[in-house]
Amino acid sequence: MAKYVYLFKEGNASMRNLLGGKGANLAEMTNIGLPVPQGFTVTTEACTRYYTDNCTIGEDITEQIYAALAETEKICGKKFGDLENPFLVSVRSGARASMPGMMDTILNLGLNDVAVQGLARLTGNERFAYDSYRRFIQMFSDVVMEIPKPLFEKVLDEIKEEKGAKFDTDLTAEDMKDVVARFKGIYLEKKGEEFPQDPKVQLMEAIKAVFRSWENPRAIIYRRLNDIPSDWGTAVNVQSMVFGNMGETSGTGVAFTRDPATGEKKLFGEYLINAQGEDVVAGIRTPQQIATLEQVMPEVYRQFVDIANKLEAHYRDMQDMEYTIERGKLYMLQTRNGKRTAAAALKIAVDLVNEGMRTKEEAVAMIDPRNLDALLHPQFDAAALKKATPVGQGLAASPGAACGQVYFTASEAAEAGMSGQKVVLVRQETSPEDIEGMVHAQGILTARGGMTSHAAVVARGMGTCCVAGCSALKVDEEAKTATIGDKVFKEGDWMSINGSTGYIYEGAIKTVDAAVSGNFATIMEWADSFRRLSVRTNADNPRDTATAVRFGAEGIGLCRTEHMFFNADRISAVREMILADTEAQRRAALDKLLPMQKGDFKAMYKALEGRPMTVRYLDPPLHEFLPAKNMTEEIEAIAKELNVTVEHIIHKIDELHEFNPMMGHRGCRLAVTYPEIAEMQTRAVIEAAIEVNAEDGYDIHPEIMIPLVGEVKELAYVKKVVVETAEKVMNEHNTHLDVKIGTMIEIPRAALTADEIAKEAEFFSFGTNDLTQMTFGFSRDDAGKFLTAYYEKKVYENDPFARLDKNGVGRLIELAAELGRKTRPNLKLGICGEHGGDPSSIEFCDAVGLDYVSCSPFRVPIARLAAAQAALAHRK
Amino acid sequence: MAKYVYLFKEGNASMRNLLGGKGANLAEMTNIGLPVPQGFTVTTEACTRYYTDNCTIGEDITEQIYAALAETEKICGKKFGDLENPFLVSVRSGARASMPGMMDTILNLGLNDVAVQGLARLTGNERFAYDSYRRFIQMFSDVVMEIPKPLFEKVLDEIKEEKGAKFDTDLTAEDMKDVVARFKGIYLEKKGEEFPQDPKVQLMEAIKAVFRSWENPRAIIYRRLNDIPSDWGTAVNVQSMVFGNMGETSGTGVAFTRDPATGEKKLFGEYLINAQGEDVVAGIRTPQQIATLEQVMPEVYRQFVDIANKLEAHYRDMQDMEYTIERGKLYMLQTRNGKRTAAAALKIAVDLVNEGMRTKEEAVAMIDPRNLDALLHPQFDAAALKKATPVGQGLAASPGAACGQVYFTASEAAEAGMSGQKVVLVRQETSPEDIEGMVHAQGILTARGGMTSHAAVVARGMGTCCVAGCSALKVDEEAKTATIGDKVFKEGDWMSINGSTGYIYEGAIKTVDAAVSGNFATIMEWADSFRRLSVRTNADNPRDTATAVRFGAEGIGLCRTEHMFFNADRISAVREMILADTEAQRRAALDKLLPMQKGDFKAMYKALEGRPMTVRYLDPPLHEFLPAKNMTEEIEAIAKELNVTVEHIIHKIDELHEFNPMMGHRGCRLAVTYPEIAEMQTRAVIEAAIEVNAEDGYDIHPEIMIPLVGEVKELAYVKKVVVETAEKVMNEHNTHLDVKIGTMIEIPRAALTADEIAKEAEFFSFGTNDLTQMTFGFSRDDAGKFLTAYYEKKVYENDPFARLDKNGVGRLIELAAELGRKTRPNLKLGICGEHGGDPSSIEFCDAVGLDYVSCSPFRVPIARLAAAQAALAHRK
Repeated sequence: MAKYVYLFKEGNASMRNLLGGKGANLAEMTNIGLPVPQGFTVTTEACTRYYTDNCTIGEDITEQIYAALAETEKICGKKFGDLENPFLVSVRSGARASMPGMMDTILNLGLNDVAVQGLARLTGNERFAYDSYRRFIQMFSDVVMEIPKPLFEKVLDEIKEEKGAKFDTDLTAEDMKDVVARFKGIYLEKKGEEFPQDPKVQLMEAIKAVFRSWENPRAIIYRRLNDIPSDWGTAVNVQSMVFGNMGETSGTGVAFTRDPATGEKKLFGEYLINAQGEDVVAGIRTPQQIATLEQVMPEVYRQFVDIANKLEAHYRDMQDMEYTIERGKLYMLQTRNGKRTAAAALKIAVDLVNEGMRTKEEAVAMIDPRNLDALLHPQFDAAALKKATPVGQGLAASPGAACGQVYFTASEAAEAGMSGQKVVLVRQETSPEDIEGMVHAQGILTARGGMTSHAAVVARGMGTCCVAGCSALKVDEEAKTATIGDKVFKEGDWMSINGSTGYIYEGAIKTVDAAVSGNFATIMEWADSFRRLSVRTNADNPRDTATAVRFGAEGIGLCRTEHMFFNADRISAVREMILADTEAQRRAALDKLLPMQKGDFKAMYKALEGRPMTVRYLDPPLHEFLPAKNMTEEIEAIAKELNVTVEHIIHKIDELHEFNPMMGHRGCRLAVTYPEIAEMQTRAVIEAAIEVNAEDGYDIHPEIMIPLVGEVKELAYVKKVVVETAEKVMNEHNTHLDVKIGTMIEIPRAALTADEIAKEAEFFSFGTNDLTQMTFGFSRDDAGKFLTAYYEKKVYENDPFARLDKNGVGRLIELAAELGRKTRPNLKLGICGEHGGDPSSIEFCDAVGLDYVSCSPFRVPIARLAAAQAALAHRK
Repeated sequence: MAKYVYLFKEGNASMRNLLGGKGANLAEMTNIGLPVPQGFTVTTEACTRYYTDNCTIGEDITEQIYAALAETEKICGKKFGDLENPFLVSVRSGARASMPGMMDTILNLGLNDVAVQGLARLTGNERFAYDSYRRFIQMFSDVVMEIPKPLFEKVLDEIKEEKGAKFDTDLTAEDMKDVVARFKGIYLEKKGEEFPQDPKVQLMEAIKAVFRSWENPRAIIYRRLNDIPSDWGTAVNVQSMVFGNMGETSGTGVAFTRDPATGEKKLFGEYLINAQGEDVVAGIRTPQQIATLEQVMPEVYRQFVDIANKLEAHYRDMQDMEYTIERGKLYMLQTRNGKRTAAAALKIAVDLVNEGMRTKEEAVAMIDPRNLDALLHPQFDAAALKKATPVGQGLAASPGAACGQVYFTASEAAEAGMSGQKVVLVRQETSPEDIEGMVHAQGILTARGGMTSHAAVVARGMGTCCVAGCSALKVDEEAKTATIGDKVFKEGDWMSINGSTGYIYEGAIKTVDAAVSGNFATIMEWADSFRRLSVRTNADNPRDTATAVRFGAEGIGLCRTEHMFFNADRISAVREMILADTEAQRRAALDKLLPMQKGDFKAMYKALEGRPMTVRYLDPPLHEFLPAKNMTEEIEAIAKELNVTVEHIIHKIDELHEFNPMMGHRGCRLAVTYPEIAEMQTRAVIEAAIEVNAEDGYDIHPEIMIPLVGEVKELAYVKKVVVETAEKVMNEHNTHLDVKIGTMIEIPRAALTADEIAKEAEFFSFGTNDLTQMTFGFSRDDAGKFLTAYYEKKVYENDPFARLDKNGVGRLIELAAELGRKTRPNLKLGICGEHGGDPSSIEFCDAVGLDYVSCSPFRVPIARLAAAQAALAHRK
């Protein structure tokens, strides 16, 4: 028969999946001889059973709970509902991963009309006993029976008024009996039955309540934010109660073995005398610093320090502990690896290595890569932030803090930015045309669009702070006003936004640049020595390139050439090319673009200082470079500038209109129809490399990437154009470069026929943004319409654009890698797209044997660390 | 060493892939002792080599050609360029599949200044010899050297004028010598060198020219239209010349062993006395019926009849033969299985079985299923058609002929149709809103859109004649005129269109309904006894359902419920549902739809007479049911009808706008967000089945299909809604029906995770239209923009929407079938989408073990036959 209940002495720290974190650690502490109030853990598997059994607890499990209860009573020498020595327990949730405060807890369970007398007798404190009983009734009614809490608070207030008491503590034992009676009255009235006197009934109801709380809304949201699968379930810990509120020799507190903010090695924490844990949390009394305990209870303090050291040494990590002192006796209620700031995490990891407690490998594995993000972006000055109140909140779309003057159009934002102003670009939503304004803004705020909207994606790529999709924000681009509630921002007004929290503030809040501390560098160095994956960056301009190189990028994995096309000085030639009716006209326009594109590539090569660069050829549908049909003014301006008729432009816009642009005339389909574009881009790539090699003495081997290939003949056709042009250019310059030609794998068919594609491609780069869209069959621009319902109904637990979908997209990647390498064993495999900077996706990339990941500049350190962790994990 | 050249006596009929059809049959005829002018075949592999060797013929192949030439000279007792007995040859293409007239032929090769004298001496006819020589120079110059033909014709005309000759035949031998001299002059002038005198040089150049002609534009187009892969290549047949133009005892002709138009068993064909094959083709003289040959040359005729019988018995099929009589001696130049009309094909197949020449299996395998289409649609009366001249041509988008009065809007077309008029609906392009007009039209003509445009797809589905994408057609919907060239059609004008050829005619051309002949029924009956696949139909209304049942459909595989939503009496309730702001409002609108939807299903069930029906739940994005934002009048009308504001409608239109509707809020995503829609549809399906079972005594088990599933939890969520509603409805009626719930597999992720999906789905129906779109990453509405370039550049050889892409989409289907059956061994697998009616795709479905195909009503007989052929092929 499956075992669903474990006494603490039966478990250990390795059983976290089954017992939850808290349960496993209580067992471990029991085993190493620490003073732990005894009890048992109902497993996470029992929780899963609870849900598959239609929210009931099976008889087999109930029997095991009762058996464990009897055993624990024996260990503690107490008995449920006993007049002499009543057994009281706490019932707490405890999932595999820590989810603080997300689920339910019930204390003092076991109290009834008899046990309360026993407790009074045993403690010689009738008031304490009845106070505990009324607390229990209140908590049980609220948490287990869903009777609204305010009903009880109101009664308590009434009694205090009747008795002329100011605080709860002013109430006497008799008063408390009165409270108990009235609370039981509320229960009877609301539930239609007496408050349950059988502690076993109380226990089973409490356990069910904890199981239920696994699915409460805040727990669901927490899980989604923290990538915790809903099928893990929670364990339930039933533990003998100890009381920190039995007078001046009792108390309760929490402590960390090191400072969780800085990582400094010193005991850090607080305690309250004569209090229960909930009082610490409630924050009514101000707790004391732990160091002062040495004066108050020297023996207990020494014992605690001893235990803390023992626990840190045992777990070899900074511990976050909860403890209670009952009449001078210390009990450990919980220990776990403590949460910490990113800076503290780095310092602790390095210190633990220096102290000989951890290996470098372990230190690298300890850091959560996602936390590093906070160290890489500007932040608000903490003091200045304290004084500010947000006027609204949007989605935390791209981290960091920004303050600047509000501008409503990309061109004005760009102008202001170039003249040295700090700028926050505020838009209804952004489009590729806004790119120049975005580049020159400190921050970007949009009213529409989700985490994967254009604004969000581009901002993250550039490392620029962005708050997106603030639905309360009304942007009137004509009138140049932005309104949130009753607050109106005009052009030039100061605004501050926090892309890590989504908050929007009025006025200028001081920001501070993040510093890369020595510990950070140390950890990165160790990480680099362990990782197998190379880390490249996605960058399209020298500024981002330089940032990425500073952050340790080993090259560019994705240079999107079209981003260069949107610059004011290029867009005109680009439009001339699009409006061309003949190949000759198109070539004339391309001739104008060539020197600019070449100049761009030269600047990028120089910023890379000899590192490799993969250039992706023109990808977006051409209509993205033209205004919308109803933008009459823009169209007229273009007509004038290019000396064509308005009708001609409108005709082209109509001609280029697509029902589904994502699945339209883009990517290599452009190069197949207009090979002259690929010719121009090849000439630019090769000439730039030749010139930079000559000027700076580098040895650049250009890497050319053909996007959106779905069929090997497509790639073969474009490759032929590229090879012939490259050879022509090299002959003209009497030189030779090794040029690698590869493709994006971003269309399912490319993955499915990767054996064919590899005949032509020298490398694959998985474009997982598009591959995710095509594999799931939804466009990320449109998915917002239904994804909310999907999260609510638990159809999806993660955003597949943020975290690689291993079951579907991942299967395609594995298949493509396998097929591709079958054809070409030395095929280089990488990933670009946003997943390249996501630790869980990087772990997958390492597992399936890719060679590199490429991510936005600000995620390069995260990727380096995640790659090291993946390599360490896969060593095992 | 690879063998690239085969003497006729070395080959046989089974070597068609290597020798081409003509070469293999020449070899076969040689082997069975028929009088064949001897020669050799250069293989298709030599053609492939020619292309991989950069359009040169390798030395090894050249040597083999010379060796075969020497051997053939020996067999014939003649020699190249010989004064005594000159060897002359024809050089002809011959691919695996017959491609009549698509590639090049050169006759009389071997003639030079010496051989022409030999020929003159041998034939005693100097005029004949020099006439042959000048024909050869002309043909060689044109076909091999690409010197424009008119240059030669002009010279010939000049000489005739000089000599006062009216016909070529009026020219003397001396005149012909003059022609030869002048022709050689043209050659020298154009090529800068003398006409080649070495027959071996002539031969090698001619062979290269044939190889080249494999890639000429008309051959490429022919291959695309006939699904012939470009990598097959063509063989080249070099054959000793015989002359049908050596006087009154010579002649040439073609004949069929049965009538290719009717299939009647009698020798059918023509001949010309004193002529070469090209004269027959040129059509200058009127040929004689073959039967008259019995009088003219009784011995030859008897010999020919004998050979014809022998060949038909040998090949066990109707033969198409070419022959030449040289001075009373009969030579067979070619035999092949004759092309025939669909009606003839059926008759011949049935007759061959009755004559004991073929088994039923072979008879079924002989019919090209694609040809049956012509038997299922109305056609123009042949006599009436002869008098008509097309005014334009578009794409032959949906077969059959139609004539009717022109209408420009769906509503006017519908009105006219309902009042009994014949209607041709003429539109710029159609949209789902036009559906009612399309239903009531005899034919549909559009100016825009390809073979997979809305008009084309819907028309094919309905079996309605459609000509799409006629780019010369200008439609002014406002002025109600359609212009092609200088021809203007106004509303009410008569027009006739042919959806099988794409031709558009002015006025009314009489049409005749197609009859299903007895042979057709016989073949279908045999086919049904061989096939393993079931054949269902895609139908959304009782009319199509009845048609499909008449054509042998075993049920409905895809009933698209949304097609019913567009009917005038429903669209208003549908819009009310879409415009609803609350669930309560939505439910109120759905309550109005319920009785209509139930009525639809009842009518369908009745039309099916107890056969099964798979109902697909609402699939398209909701904006398809609203007018476009700029359709002010329509919007105002709706606002008035539904008593809402215009602003509200416009707001909804904005809200529903999607960047990529194909990948947006549609399919089961609608049911996840608005489960009440699935509830209504379930109630309609179940109640309709219960009522029809009661009324008509059927035993209907509803099959419900959830579209666009990509993740098992999506399906599980919707399935729960369906099951709960179905149970509720069945309880209300105190009855129970077995309800099957399955899903479309049309998103790559569904195929990749089919093992998961099969846990919830009781059947899979592969929606290969969408699956093709997602797998290729292009939308069929937009692909037209680049597919032309793709065909030109040979990136694609087939339209993947017409013919299932086995490499990519097929791999997904195989994977899904395998994974799905691993989870649920009895999982029912089928295909809907247009591929369900395509023979090559059906062959694939049979090969991968699907259970059924579902196709449009008019393709049901084709699918039945193709399924039988697939089963027969896979038996082997």
